[in-house]
Amino acid sequence: MKLYSRENLDFILFDVLSVQELNKLTFFGEYDKENLGMILDTASELADKIKPEHIAESDRNEPELKNGRVQVHSAVHEFVKSYAEAGFVGAALPEALGGFQIPKTIVAAIDFILCSKSNSFIMYTDLAKGVANVIATFGTEAQKQRFLPNLLSGKWLGTMCLTETESGSSLANITTKAIPQSDGSYQIKGQKIFISAGDHDITENIIHLVLARIEGAPQGTKGISLFLVPTRLENGEDNDVGSIGIYHKMGQKATPAMHLEFGANDTCVGYLVGEAHKGLSHMFLMMDNARLSVGSMGAGIASAAYYHALRYAKERKQGKHLDESKDASESVAIINHPDVRRMLLSQKAFLEGTLGFILQCYSYLDLQKHSPNEDEVEKYTRLLNLLTPVAKTYGAEHGVSSVNQALQVFGGYGYTADFPLEQLARDVRILPIYEGTTGIHALGLLGRQVLRDQGKALAIWRDEVMKDVHQALEIKEIEASASRLSLEIEHFFEITQHLAELTKKNTADIYLADANLYMEFFGTLNVGWQWIKQAIVAYEKMQERPDAVFLKSKVKTMEFFFTYEIPNLKGLKERLLSLERTTVKTDDDEILM
Amino acid sequence: MKLYSRENLDFILFDVLSVQELNKLTFFGEYDKENLGMILDTASELADKIKPEHIAESDRNEPELKNGRVQVHSAVHEFVKSYAEAGFVGAALPEALGGFQIPKTIVAAIDFILCSKSNSFIMYTDLAKGVANVIATFGTEAQKQRFLPNLLSGKWLGTMCLTETESGSSLANITTKAIPQSDGSYQIKGQKIFISAGDHDITENIIHLVLARIEGAPQGTKGISLFLVPTRLENGEDNDVGSIGIYHKMGQKATPAMHLEFGANDTCVGYLVGEAHKGLSHMFLMMDNARLSVGSMGAGIASAAYYHALRYAKERKQGKHLDESKDASESVAIINHPDVRRMLLSQKAFLEGTLGFILQCYSYLDLQKHSPNEDEVEKYTRLLNLLTPVAKTYGAEHGVSSVNQALQVFGGYGYTADFPLEQLARDVRILPIYEGTTGIHALGLLGRQVLRDQGKALAIWRDEVMKDVHQALEIKEIEASASRLSLEIEHFFEITQHLAELTKKNTADIYLADANLYMEFFGTLNVGWQWIKQAIVAYEKMQERPDAVFLKSKVKTMEFFFTYEIPNLKGLKERLLSLERTTVKTDDDEILM
Repeated sequence: MKLYSRENLDFILFDVLSVQELNKLTFFGEYDKENLGMILDTASELADKIKPEHIAESDRNEPELKNGRVQVHSAVHEFVKSYAEAGFVGAALPEALGGFQIPKTIVAAIDFILCSKSNSFIMYTDLAKGVANVIATFGTEAQKQRFLPNLLSGKWLGTMCLTETESGSSLANITTKAIPQSDGSYQIKGQKIFISAGDHDITENIIHLVLARIEGAPQGTKGISLFLVPTRLENGEDNDVGSIGIYHKMGQKATPAMHLEFGANDTCVGYLVGEAHKGLSHMFLMMDNARLSVGSMGAGIASAAYYHALRYAKERKQGKHLDESKDASESVAIINHPDVRRMLLSQKAFLEGTLGFILQCYSYLDLQKHSPNEDEVEKYTRLLNLLTPVAKTYGAEHGVSSVNQALQVFGGYGYTADFPLEQLARDVRILPIYEGTTGIHALGLLGRQVLRDQGKALAIWRDEVMKDVHQALEIKEIEASASRLSLEIEHFFEITQHLAELTKKNTADIYLADANLYMEFFGTLNVGWQWIKQAIVAYEKMQERPDAVFLKSKVKTMEFFFTYEIPNLKGLKERLLSLERTTVKTDDDEILM
Repeated sequence: MKLYSRENLDFILFDVLSVQELNKLTFFGEYDKENLGMILDTASELADKIKPEHIAESDRNEPELKNGRVQVHSAVHEFVKSYAEAGFVGAALPEALGGFQIPKTIVAAIDFILCSKSNSFIMYTDLAKGVANVIATFGTEAQKQRFLPNLLSGKWLGTMCLTETESGSSLANITTKAIPQSDGSYQIKGQKIFISAGDHDITENIIHLVLARIEGAPQGTKGISLFLVPTRLENGEDNDVGSIGIYHKMGQKATPAMHLEFGANDTCVGYLVGEAHKGLSHMFLMMDNARLSVGSMGAGIASAAYYHALRYAKERKQGKHLDESKDASESVAIINHPDVRRMLLSQKAFLEGTLGFILQCYSYLDLQKHSPNEDEVEKYTRLLNLLTPVAKTYGAEHGVSSVNQALQVFGGYGYTADFPLEQLARDVRILPIYEGTTGIHALGLLGRQVLRDQGKALAIWRDEVMKDVHQALEIKEIEASASRLSLEIEHFFEITQHLAELTKKNTADIYLADANLYMEFFGTLNVGWQWIKQAIVAYEKMQERPDAVFLKSKVKTMEFFFTYEIPNLKGLKERLLSLERTTVKTDDDEILM
């Protein structure tokens, strides 16, 4: 059963983003289009090995904490093993560290493929990759030697431990303690909640990355350090990491969310990673990857949902043709009804546009990390700071809507466990919460990346977009959409200017009040940009293959996005330019009652 | 724990809709404001009796079909008993039939209160009420005597059996057969799916209302008749109604959705209700009630979600004041953050506006049924035909968004079973599917109620709205919003005219393609209208109670709706006036791939 389109993935990777040209950078020297294609083939084979009934089983029989340990479905064990055997955990790492120096853009494509098959299984490997990446970047030589080989081989898995009961969106409140020991290690003491894959029986050892406060450290975020805390010490002894609870979640049930206690017996050993008190910025390396990966997960789950809905819409017969000139004697497949087509096109426009946007962010990551040109490195760093929260949020928020539209295509069946939509809709709902809620990222985008940055990153972004817009303006069939995008970008800068003006005489609650809507506006522009890019390439290729349905479909979907999604910006613009601040608490009366 | 606001309910019922004045109609002669208030008190006490842990239990341990019978949680048994004992099943029926002649508007308020406590439990009683209503309206004297007393006392419950495997949105395809017997009864044979409360152990008898085709009946919807099919015959014998499957649903798990087989042994007896071949229009009486009740359920679930989120937002401390002039030394309750307030106000604006809209529809139902004035009866009949699908759809679609915003307020906790939001979000997702999907109702609204009706009902609607708009234009503080509403109504008529023009030279797939967006536009106007009405009354009352926080809150929420929701109409207008028809299949290439 098709759950993603390889043709579309290749189109985005090789025709739009030209990922194969990354091999001009020394680091990626070996990989050409053919090699990269073979890697994607491997991912596809791995996805095929996961049995749909195991996905459903691991959802229905959710993991329970029994006798202090969590057991997960054997299919997850097998998946982790195959993923690691394929070399995917360390795929992007340097060869010297056991990796394969594959572009992160390709690794993201691998995970997109696997996510379309089982979004819950890849949580484990995604976390292992993240932990390996942090160790590779900030770890000491000894830490690298001790932890990387076993993480890369799949012998061990990892987690990220940030959240505490009183410290969710606000990490400044973290209270987990790290007490320096004479041997240079630390004793870790504290509780962490919502730890994905925080306990399981897949590996003998789980490497937790834990944010904690070294005794005597400064208050707030600048006193937080990052520690490696394995569940087993080198001598095989238990490291005093206890599971004290498991959360029962709406979805992604194959991945347990744990309440963990470190150091209940005062014997939990942690190892500082990177510099003391710089834990948060170190962790953000992992977080930024995790954020893009959440956005990508939105596209991956939406892809599965779309292809399920598409297949159903082609098979399910119900109602007559609305076009009365057609045969009215029998029921037609519901894919013929305009409203069903609207729901499907909306999913396709989200999925393909957002996938392009996210993979472009990953390609920036590759360029930022490996370009020899300092200006380029700075440019991509700025673009990534600006776009990472947007890719995460757009993928998450619209991923939820998209999957719910797929469910709606199924009617009553969509609400039942007879089809996978019911599960996918539960799974996808976590995304606007994972790795920073939509509200937090919106504040970060408008407050930090735009206003505090004085629009510098935004100016670079505009240059990038306008290059494509100018190219598109030369193509008759895309001209109107390109010109609309250009107009909406002007509106966006007008809005930005308006909000920047507000900073002069107002407090942050006034000028940041509608950050969420600003985020939505900017996200829509970015996906609109992707559609212009994809349409340009589609038209180029149509010169040689004018009848290719894939290319016609691209252009039609671009038109759909500009007809159905871009107009939403009108309402957002009105609200963002308004001086009404009904959401800001202004007096002593609490009107929320 | 507060799950709805009685003050708000009273405000809508008595101050805005003046339900107490229905007693000018002979039928409601007895009830004044005080009596009606006491009835609501009873509903409130009944809601208090339902234990939250039983709601969670009945969700986690979903009913299973065992040995041909479904067992449901004992709390549901108790609830049905209390509901019937309170006289609520037949509350709206004439005294001669065992009822209490209470306005349906009040019965709807009762169910709203109970729905805010447990949306799944009231499915049973809602269905019993509907069946009783159909029998009271179309049943023979003998049928009334046989079935009504036991339905009203809660001894029996009922269902509506419409859907079949190949007949969901399109009821024309129904194949269940009814074979005439010599005694005037029918032998029923066929299968029905998705039958809510179709099997359970609460009552000894379940009265199914079944759509079936009498042998030799015309094809299509005009050959469908309606039958009463009890699971037990008068002599206590089994009536050959079998449960062959139970659906595992995403939510509303306390109510089993059944796959039923009638007449597996050719011994299932059914009794014709009303006229042969008019079953669908008879059933629509029940359906129209059921549709309003789905819309109301959207408001009821959203009410529970809102009050949970509101309480959490007041208690949960996270982050500092965004207003830097405030104390920055410690964390504040998240209700102080503008984005959290936006999410809460959005829920409140939906909930109170939609509740007003739906209760107004119910008051039309009371007037339509009991007004002695023929013109009034016609007017309210037309308004109900026009507005019922809108109330259903707006309540359902925005109910889903609203509950999901409440979940988002909880962050990670919202996704876990530690709080009720996770369940409420699963429960509410069925609403855009129940009793006709959003797509079907949108086609009905635009195709039937507007275009085929040549705008007659719409003209009546406009007169009603404009009365309130003109009144609001006289009040300085509401003038701007009223004038905006008036402008958007003009836009709506412009759009309607544009679509009517399209009917002249185009097939239905062209002019109905964006029916869904048309529905969304009209729904928003209706809730905007309610907000104008509520604001007018709030201002009137503020003359005497200028400091009443409840009234200030009303006005602020109205402003929120006009600042944050009404601007969405701009994008909808652009799309509805566009001649692009990307969703209509125009050539042989299937671009959905």
